[in-house]
Amino acid sequence: AAVVASRLLQHHIACQLQAVIEILRAPGSPCNTPPPPRFFTEKKIQHESLVIGAIENAFKEMDAQIEREKQVYNITGGCTALTVVYLLGKLYVGNAGDSRAIIIRNNEIIPMSTEFTPESERQRLQFLGFMQPHLLGNEFTHLEFPRRVQRKEVGKRMLYRDFTMSGWAYKTIEDEDLKFPLIYGEGKKARVLATIGVTRGLGDHDLKVHDSNIYIKPFLSCCPEVKVYNLMQYEHGADDVLVMGTDGLWDVLSNQEVAEAVTTFLANCDPDDLHRYTMAAQDLVMRARGVLRDRGWRITNERLGSGDDISVFIIPLMYGNRQP
Amino acid sequence: AAVVASRLLQHHIACQLQAVIEILRAPGSPCNTPPPPRFFTEKKIQHESLVIGAIENAFKEMDAQIEREKQVYNITGGCTALTVVYLLGKLYVGNAGDSRAIIIRNNEIIPMSTEFTPESERQRLQFLGFMQPHLLGNEFTHLEFPRRVQRKEVGKRMLYRDFTMSGWAYKTIEDEDLKFPLIYGEGKKARVLATIGVTRGLGDHDLKVHDSNIYIKPFLSCCPEVKVYNLMQYEHGADDVLVMGTDGLWDVLSNQEVAEAVTTFLANCDPDDLHRYTMAAQDLVMRARGVLRDRGWRITNERLGSGDDISVFIIPLMYGNRQP
Repeated sequence: AAVVASRLLQHHIACQLQAVIEILRAPGSPCNTPPPPRFFTEKKIQHESLVIGAIENAFKEMDAQIEREKQVYNITGGCTALTVVYLLGKLYVGNAGDSRAIIIRNNEIIPMSTEFTPESERQRLQFLGFMQPHLLGNEFTHLEFPRRVQRKEVGKRMLYRDFTMSGWAYKTIEDEDLKFPLIYGEGKKARVLATIGVTRGLGDHDLKVHDSNIYIKPFLSCCPEVKVYNLMQYEHGADDVLVMGTDGLWDVLSNQEVAEAVTTFLANCDPDDLHRYTMAAQDLVMRARGVLRDRGWRITNERLGSGDDISVFIIPLMYGNRQP
Repeated sequence: AAVVASRLLQHHIACQLQAVIEILRAPGSPCNTPPPPRFFTEKKIQHESLVIGAIENAFKEMDAQIEREKQVYNITGGCTALTVVYLLGKLYVGNAGDSRAIIIRNNEIIPMSTEFTPESERQRLQFLGFMQPHLLGNEFTHLEFPRRVQRKEVGKRMLYRDFTMSGWAYKTIEDEDLKFPLIYGEGKKARVLATIGVTRGLGDHDLKVHDSNIYIKPFLSCCPEVKVYNLMQYEHGADDVLVMGTDGLWDVLSNQEVAEAVTTFLANCDPDDLHRYTMAAQDLVMRARGVLRDRGWRITNERLGSGDDISVFIIPLMYGNRQP
């Protein structure tokens, strides 16, 4: 799925943008002016919203294409997806999954995405499980408990959390509560349906709970969150960049560590070297992978390197300064 | 419903807090330490989360009581609900509806609630309508359009927005899209099911779409958002206060105007006057109502006064400074 998406998602985005291109480049219409309303009661829609909508629907189309063609082309698995579109002076970063994008500007870190995990999406997932209980296959409960409930605890009180709650309260345990919780575990170990730790992405249409007929896909969203960054609003230097990386990078390096590594690396490059951004990205991959020692791959401070896929793009922002 | 809730909601909160009081006042257990885990895999739950959960469930119980007793006591209508609980050095502000609470500290404004409107809750409401289409009674569509779709536009393209989207995109209009949008209108005029402009609150169990059998209540949530303010973290002066007001106040006065009015009023009071906070609240009500002129009730700058209920509480924060 990752390979297919990496080749085709951009075409879906281009295709969706085609549908609104005429409005976006309407003569004399500046960036932020909505198309002229035809009716007084018509809601005014910003150009920006059309680009966001195009990216959102491109992800949906990509996911639908994977589903349609998975048999024919033997597409397996699923993937996180992170894209950036530069259009009319703005960067649009679309993210579905556990990849991450940050902007490093003048040593400041600006997050350009949020991760989608069982914990950050708990309420959406519990709401879905509550409204469509057949998706839980009589084996899971949409309620969250701090730990597995045991049979001998039926009739006793235990803390729980429902989809409407952000706090915890007590309830009396019933038989129903002995089912496995839809959301279970903490931090890196949090899982949906005891299976998956990422709640958005592309593909995974055939993924089921181990040894059952319960599909994971209804709980996975392929819809990205799109964040907008107005390049025109700031002056960017040669070392101001957008860093996009998969979870393999961010699992082992913090935003701060990445920013320091990139800034230090770029400062030591020949400023005329056209490959300096690519080299900085390669440097990040090496830092996240580490070097092979006696006790496995190790990065700085003897920490374990990432065993996951590590993909990194570093995109300079200074070309956004140049006005046409 | 407003009268019942104003008398009973506090009892529900007290009742819910009773259930966790033993944990909260466990000897030697400081404010932020979770109860000792009995199992290694047990999720650690902060005391704060228990108070939040108690307030959340108190709102649910209050709403259930209104439903149970509405026939017997002839309870009609619905209401917004805003509460504050002071416990163990923290303020817990719970809000469901279009009331608002702000803290004024050293001339700084700290929002302590967010309003729940068709626009701010669009995605939750559309998601519900999509998953339970029978709630839309064959008269409404969960999709959003910038304006009403006309029959002659079937087959043409129009911008739309689904529950997964924050941007807009084009779709080809079908017969289904001629139904009235679940969410319609902008700003103060935004409505759910063409009926109600507030999406959380208590009561309104019998409210239906005009001239139909479609109930509004499934789309209304009685669950509050609870925000926490740690009084211990700051020193508070005599003019630092929590202002709680219904929409009648905030419809006509901005946070800034309220803060200026309160600060100015309190500065001109005798600092030993025990009624100064009450008087400041009365002053705010008068400012929002205005005075009766030839052309109706007018406030400053000839603006129209509020015709809605105006209730205001002003609570001094300096007593939170005193350590026991």
